[in-house]
Order: sequence, then C-alpha cells, then structure tokens
Amino acid sequence: MKRLARYSVFARIVALGTLLVFSLYAQAQTDPLHSWNDGPAKQAILAFVENTTTQGSPEFVPPEERIATFDQDGTLWVEHPMYTQVMYVLESVPALVKAKPELAKVAPFSTVLEVLKGDRAAIAKLTMPDLMKLLAATSTGMSVETFSAEAKKWLAEAKDPRWKKPYTELTYLPMQEVLKYLRANGYKTFIVTGGGQDFVRVYSDAVYGIPPEQVVGTAGGTKYGYDKDGKPFLTKEPKLLLNDNNAGKPESIHLMIGRRPHAAFGNSTGDRQMLEYTKAGDGARLAMLVLHDDATREYAYGPAQGLPATKIGTFSDALMAEAKQQGWIVISMKNDWKRIFAFEP
Amino acid sequence: MKRLARYSVFARIVALGTLLVFSLYAQAQTDPLHSWNDGPAKQAILAFVENTTTQGSPEFVPPEERIATFDQDGTLWVEHPMYTQVMYVLESVPALVKAKPELAKVAPFSTVLEVLKGDRAAIAKLTMPDLMKLLAATSTGMSVETFSAEAKKWLAEAKDPRWKKPYTELTYLPMQEVLKYLRANGYKTFIVTGGGQDFVRVYSDAVYGIPPEQVVGTAGGTKYGYDKDGKPFLTKEPKLLLNDNNAGKPESIHLMIGRRPHAAFGNSTGDRQMLEYTKAGDGARLAMLVLHDDATREYAYGPAQGLPATKIGTFSDALMAEAKQQGWIVISMKNDWKRIFAFEP
Repeated sequence: MKRLARYSVFARIVALGTLLVFSLYAQAQTDPLHSWNDGPAKQAILAFVENTTTQGSPEFVPPEERIATFDQDGTLWVEHPMYTQVMYVLESVPALVKAKPELAKVAPFSTVLEVLKGDRAAIAKLTMPDLMKLLAATSTGMSVETFSAEAKKWLAEAKDPRWKKPYTELTYLPMQEVLKYLRANGYKTFIVTGGGQDFVRVYSDAVYGIPPEQVVGTAGGTKYGYDKDGKPFLTKEPKLLLNDNNAGKPESIHLMIGRRPHAAFGNSTGDRQMLEYTKAGDGARLAMLVLHDDATREYAYGPAQGLPATKIGTFSDALMAEAKQQGWIVISMKNDWKRIFAFEP
Repeated sequence: MKRLARYSVFARIVALGTLLVFSLYAQAQTDPLHSWNDGPAKQAILAFVENTTTQGSPEFVPPEERIATFDQDGTLWVEHPMYTQVMYVLESVPALVKAKPELAKVAPFSTVLEVLKGDRAAIAKLTMPDLMKLLAATSTGMSVETFSAEAKKWLAEAKDPRWKKPYTELTYLPMQEVLKYLRANGYKTFIVTGGGQDFVRVYSDAVYGIPPEQVVGTAGGTKYGYDKDGKPFLTKEPKLLLNDNNAGKPESIHLMIGRRPHAAFGNSTGDRQMLEYTKAGDGARLAMLVLHDDATREYAYGPAQGLPATKIGTFSDALMAEAKQQGWIVISMKNDWKRIFAFEP
C-alpha cells in the first residue's frame, strides 16, 4: 500500500513534469512573436490583433479593412551605415563606366570609383543631387525587365561588409514575425518605403512574403514604346512620380491602397505622417517606431540615442516627443528583441 | 413476363430522363459562364483558364502571377450614352451652384444647368476642358472622405434614364461571371479604368468584388494637411497624377501592380496599349474586346458597327484590324451573351 502510494506520487510528478515541458514547448511553438521579449511593445501588438479580430469586440475590424503598412529601411531590415539601394547604385557605377569610359573622370562617377577603391571617406562628398544623378544613370533609360534582372543579379551576389551576408538576410526576425502574425489574422501587409518601388519589388515576395502589388515606394515614371520588331515595352524614365517620404507616405497610401491603415510601422522622421495618418483613424490603430539602440547586436544611432543626426533615417527627439504624445509605441531593439536576425543562434 | 419487361423499359426511361434532367441542371449549375452562348469567346476564356491553371500544363502560370485587368466603362458596365462619372459630375453642379450662386450664370456651369433642365442637346456644347473644369469643381478641394461619402450618396439615389435602375446594377452579368471564374481559379482581378480611381473605389468591392487597392484609374494628387484640431487629412487636389488611358494604362499597371497581366479586357481604343502589353508577355495571354453590337438589348455604336465615332469609348476599324492581327478575341454582345444584365429574366 505504501509502495503503491509512493509509486503513485512518483507517477504524478512525472506526469506533471511531462505536462509542464510539453506546455512550455507548445507555448514556444504557438507564440507568434517568439523572438520578442515580453514587454509593452509585444503586448501592444498582441492586444491590437486580439481586439481587432475577435468577433464582437468593440474594436473589431472587418477582414477587408485590415491593412498594415511597413516602412522598409531601418524598420524591416538594416539601413546603417548606408541604404542597400544606395549600395546598389554605387556598385553599379563600374559597369556603367565600362560602357561609357568618359564618365570615369566626371563627378560624381569619379567620386564613386574612389569610394569603391576603398576611400570610404570620399562617400561624404556625395550630395543628394549627386545621388539623384547616379540613380538616374544606373536605374533609368532601360526597360523595366532589364532593371529588375540587374537588381536581382546584384542582390544574389552582394554582401553586407559587417555580417558578410546577402543584404536580403539582414531582415529583422521579430518584424518578420509581426508580418506573418498579422497576415495569419487576416491583415494585408504592405511595404511603404522611401526606397525605390521597382527595386524593392524585385525581392519583396521572396524576402517578406509581400507581393509586388503590395509594395508602395518612391517611383519614377515609365514610358510605353515599341522595339524594332513592334513589341511593346516600358522604359524607366528619370522623372520622379512619387516621393514616398514624409507627407508623401499617406498621399501614396491613398493613391496606391485607397484605405487608411489600421497599423503602421516606421523608424524615422520620414514615417511621421504615415503614423499620424494611421492613428487619426477611428477605432483601434497601432503605430510603432523601431528605435536603433543596440550598438552591439546592430547599431545605435540618431538624436534619440544622444548621437548626432545621420543623413539616413533619423529618429529625432521631436519624433520621440510626438510618439509619447500620440500614443505611438517605441520598440527598443535592445530590450524588446530577443533575437534580431534569423541567422543568429 | 411481358408486363414486367414493359414495366422495366418504362422504369429505365424514367431513370434515364431523371438522369438527363439532373445532368443538365448540374451542368447549368457548374458552368461558370452560364450567361455566355457557346462560341469562340466563351471557349477562349475556358481554354485560357484550363491551360494556365492545370499543373503540368506547358502554359501553367504560378498562382502569384495570375493577374487579370479589366477596363470598366463599356467593358464591365454600360458607358452609353454617357459615362456614369460624367453624370455624377453634371448632377453635382446644382449643389455647387447653391453653395456659390455666382456660378449659375458662368459657363460651363450654366450649360450644365440647361442640360439638367431638359435641354439634352446643350450637352454637345461641353468641351473636354469644360469637363475638366467641372470635374475639378465638383471632385477636388475636399477631403478624400467627403468625396467618397458624396459619391456614395449619389450612387445610391441616381438612376439610369433608360433602365430606371441604379447605375451599379447596369453591370454585365457575363463579365461578372468572368471575374468570379478567374478569381475562383486563383487570378487576382484588377480594374484598370480611364475613370476616376477614387470614384470607382467607392463601389468596386460591393459591385465587382474588387477591393479599392485593386482599382487603378485616372488619379489626381492629394495633399496632406491638418485641421484646426491638428487632425491630419488628405485633400483632393486639381492636379492630374495619372491619366489612365491609352499608353497610360500599361504605365499605370506597372506603377500600381508591378506585374504584366496574363489576361486583359477592354472595349475601346483607350484599351489598345493595355491589350498589346498583356499579349506581348510570354506564355498564355488572353486579350479580349467587348463589341457593342446589340442595339436592342444594350447599344450599338462606333465605327466597327458602321456608326460614327462617338466621344466616348470608340471601337475603331483600326482597333478591329489590330485585334485580328494580334489574336485578340472580340466579344459580340449580341451573339456571345445569352443574358446581359442580372435583372433580366
């Protein structure tokens, strides 16, 4: 009798232990945001989805209105020290100079050649008009298919100098989880980027599961014409059609999507108006900003980190103040993210 | 024995008859294009879907690339004798004049008032610049939400003078079947219209099952700003951003969708480039034109009917010639459509 009781206690402990292990395992498996540390950012995302997708909830959003928009550079993938597309433009210059050798001695092409030879400091010489000129020279005057094929080829070969990985692997795992979690709950996810729409569309489906038609970005015009055999094609023109930054973000969202997002994610002053516009809608709206405060695992930069403003994506003190005032939630990469990249252990 | 045999023959006839009735019924139920008469147009649609969606078919198209684009006016709904949106603009003038009485004596507003009082002939006085002026006056200078609400209100009340039905009921049942059939086979359906993008988006989901983000149209710019309480909103500007006609159609398709359609449907010279661009892609591509040749059940108009070109949607002889040369399929409303409207018996 006593032995039986002892055995029974032992059996119960084993059973309870097994149950505990399984339940922790199941929890890890079912936690849609398992790369997030528990905290206000993670809780805000979970609560938003729960509130907007539960039938009968006062904040229920019908499936067709579930729109979520994401900035790309600095929000979905690394933007520091240089936007990936700028790297593409710079690294496209040698081929351009090979085709037109007279450019080798003309700025800004000559400056780019110096940078690529190792004179990284020379990059500071490049002004915004220089970059526009380089963009026009490397990314227009060709068919849309040629541009896509060249960008695709570069993306397959190019590597980020710090991680020695293709740029397309430098996406943030916690944000990938947010994309998937929202989609699993009926949200249609869009990229709304200051980057080039045609560039991002080359890899958006493979990298983020976001099809080209759900990528909104800075866009130039195209021109319809015919080749010598009468076959029609579109040529990329050096003419700015949409500047998808600042106020251009909500304007492009209206043009390209036609609905106000229920959730929007950004990381810089260029995303301010998109977040304002999102949050100004009725009912539950989620506005979040990624703060780059992890100098060890990624980067720490910008005024909100007590560092000087950089040319790229600036998280200003004014943005931080507006976030607090408007109820936008700041995601600390350092504190909120358990893992940053999928390739990390 | 003889009686039994006779009974058995009778039973067999009943059984066969029942089977026949059921099979015809089942066929009618399962025929996705049951408002189409059998013929080359119907067969072309069925074959295209079969060829592009059957695994292992040499013309198989992966689901994510299944894009089909549809012109609206004259392709999905009635455009004769006047585009619905033009009716909206004209019928919006009285409210405008009420708010600004000084306009009552100024052309083109005064001309519109004459037309609405019954002088239908006065409509001929309106030039394209007049229409642009009327469009700017009735459809810009307000928030995007105000425009949508006003257009929605008008659509709920306005009626086509011939059928005495809301305009939104004047869609072509056979084309609604094509939309549904393509979607049931993994195609994403888009409207690509010369009409106003914001106007069509008001009813596209309810009328065609096409969400606003899948409507591409002629579009004006918007301007981001704040009301007196600091709440952000977008104002519709009288500035043309996309002219979604002719070459503008493939250009807008690239901008807004970013993929070449596998199927495109139109009815006028304004759709020519969209059909050329669609058909110029690799593999199976379907290009179709609706010909308005049914003077009894709908309308017959345009040069391809031996009638003078009208201001609106012209099916020219040149378009007919190009259709033949390029392998586009012409849909005869008279011969290919069994029923035109859902409200018909």
